[in-house]
Amino acid sequence: MENRFDPGRLVRKGLQELVPYQEITYPGVIKLNANENPYDFPEEIRLAINEMLGPQSFTRYPDAMAQQLVQELAHCHGVSAEQIMVGNGSDELILDLMLTFGAGNRVVIAVPTFSMYGIHARVAGAEIVEIPRQFDFELDVPEIVRASGDAALVVLCSPNNPSGNSATVEQVQSILDNCPCPVVVDQAYVEFGGPDFLPLLDRYPNLVILRTFSKAYGLAGLRVGYLFAQSQVLQYLFKVKQPFNLNTFSQVAALTVLRHRDVFAPQVAEITRQRDILYNTMQQMPGFDVLPSDANYLMFKTGYSAADVFDGLLSRGVLVRNFGDPLLSQYLRVSVGQTEENVIFLRSLQQVIAMLGEKD
Amino acid sequence: MENRFDPGRLVRKGLQELVPYQEITYPGVIKLNANENPYDFPEEIRLAINEMLGPQSFTRYPDAMAQQLVQELAHCHGVSAEQIMVGNGSDELILDLMLTFGAGNRVVIAVPTFSMYGIHARVAGAEIVEIPRQFDFELDVPEIVRASGDAALVVLCSPNNPSGNSATVEQVQSILDNCPCPVVVDQAYVEFGGPDFLPLLDRYPNLVILRTFSKAYGLAGLRVGYLFAQSQVLQYLFKVKQPFNLNTFSQVAALTVLRHRDVFAPQVAEITRQRDILYNTMQQMPGFDVLPSDANYLMFKTGYSAADVFDGLLSRGVLVRNFGDPLLSQYLRVSVGQTEENVIFLRSLQQVIAMLGEKD
Repeated sequence: MENRFDPGRLVRKGLQELVPYQEITYPGVIKLNANENPYDFPEEIRLAINEMLGPQSFTRYPDAMAQQLVQELAHCHGVSAEQIMVGNGSDELILDLMLTFGAGNRVVIAVPTFSMYGIHARVAGAEIVEIPRQFDFELDVPEIVRASGDAALVVLCSPNNPSGNSATVEQVQSILDNCPCPVVVDQAYVEFGGPDFLPLLDRYPNLVILRTFSKAYGLAGLRVGYLFAQSQVLQYLFKVKQPFNLNTFSQVAALTVLRHRDVFAPQVAEITRQRDILYNTMQQMPGFDVLPSDANYLMFKTGYSAADVFDGLLSRGVLVRNFGDPLLSQYLRVSVGQTEENVIFLRSLQQVIAMLGEKD
Repeated sequence: MENRFDPGRLVRKGLQELVPYQEITYPGVIKLNANENPYDFPEEIRLAINEMLGPQSFTRYPDAMAQQLVQELAHCHGVSAEQIMVGNGSDELILDLMLTFGAGNRVVIAVPTFSMYGIHARVAGAEIVEIPRQFDFELDVPEIVRASGDAALVVLCSPNNPSGNSATVEQVQSILDNCPCPVVVDQAYVEFGGPDFLPLLDRYPNLVILRTFSKAYGLAGLRVGYLFAQSQVLQYLFKVKQPFNLNTFSQVAALTVLRHRDVFAPQVAEITRQRDILYNTMQQMPGFDVLPSDANYLMFKTGYSAADVFDGLLSRGVLVRNFGDPLLSQYLRVSVGQTEENVIFLRSLQQVIAMLGEKD
């Protein structure tokens, strides 16, 4: 048995070559690598979540359709409950989109962008067509439209992770008007800036919008994403959705956060303000270029290898994000942290660049 | 745009035909349809979970590898941490298995059994080969082995959901010895009875065992499943796993339950005792056949249509499980509940059968 068992022969080639998303844990660092909400979770909301739990909330299966959460999301966003699906983080919704439309088909992705689109596309068995963004990371609309002709899905991200710039309404409309397949716009960071494309939903049956509680709303640890689409598209996604995909605690937590969203509004305002301070300060400092951002992070480029800058920052206790992407070999991304974390980041970055300059 | 957008043309035929797992909610009934732990969740464990949460447990992404939970599971089961993967319920692990081995290949499923194997196989794009169990729901080992020759995965369930009977060690060994592909044994109910196949893990690189916190351990609402396999198989599953698949709260809850598993042992003993009482009582009652069960549920057959018995019970406030499966058109499944719930179920069942008999 031992000798003839070779599971690798049963695994698709595309999967064998897939390198999983890597997450290395660095305890005790200032964590500016994952675009999370940097504040402590509001204690009054934590208590309100607990008060909503009954003695059998854990023991019984979750509401498969997360009806209460979906209804209140619909009300909050001014759409119909039939236009919403929730997931175990946007990750699951991206996989569901890929399994529904991508499998065996082509998926157009505007790159560089969030790496999970490509990973989930490979997992689902889709062929990936990467359309590079322009020099300033703007979408190449004509190329996206051209590639969509024989594709089953187009994936955009706005504000784009990691470059921070947003698509314009004109760009997205032009893509929606001319692409014959569903067009996903991941708006995970839209609370921090850039256009919200939800008003386009009723006019475009091919528009799919992804949103999340992981960024502005401080629930990255609980994995709650949601998706807007017309029923024409949603009916197929529901075939693929795992029946009990969103656990009860996360449903209750997201619902409670939604009801207390006024608590998060000042946090979002402060993160946005800190982002602009960080941007202005970095722009005036010599040694690197920083890109304007609509999100809660900034992408920047130094004259040095991104790996060296990353390591220098880490040795000073600051974790930022570097990329395996060859399109981004000189870039790093820093999430906006609490005020004092941002100050430490800036000071550390200056030290690292000075040190690397001396080595030249 | 509206006229020419047809997402259905982009969806695989197998997916278009897929009927999703249906979950209809009936508020206020005695819920004996989902094989959940029927008791209130122990308050001291709920408090212990809360004590493990810090101010940023919700705001930061989960530990992608659930290291603490995996280590303590490994210790508890006497295996290596490298032989474990956790998931957002066993559902996610089944989908991962199907995506890894099933996509584009054949998957052998011993039926009748848990419907999600077939649904996830279709979602992943696998071809399903159903091998019927024998008249007494025993595995047809020679047929399973024969079918596995050109298959990429074999899926068994022991104790089997819904029939309640277990595979024997000899049957499973014979399948493992003669199948050239991974063999999944879903042991979601093994805490209630039947052989535990984990001792075979080191000898069989093609053995994959599924376990869950949803049944004996009262965490159905929090979705925590886990899987044992050798690294030869696990290395491929990790390529498919969503990076942050198990949320932080569920990780902490499962860890806390594991540390307090002595609290659940008497619950499991009582459920098992109640199951045997229910079985013995039903066996002595005229009008239906009940199957012996190693799990926390009993499957039974009446001379009447399962739909009529189901409706009759529901009208008396008792929810059991009926099946869309033509192999089980006369069968229903009842989960063992709290003592008084079981009494109400039995009384209601007798009334329903008497009523149906009068109609004849």
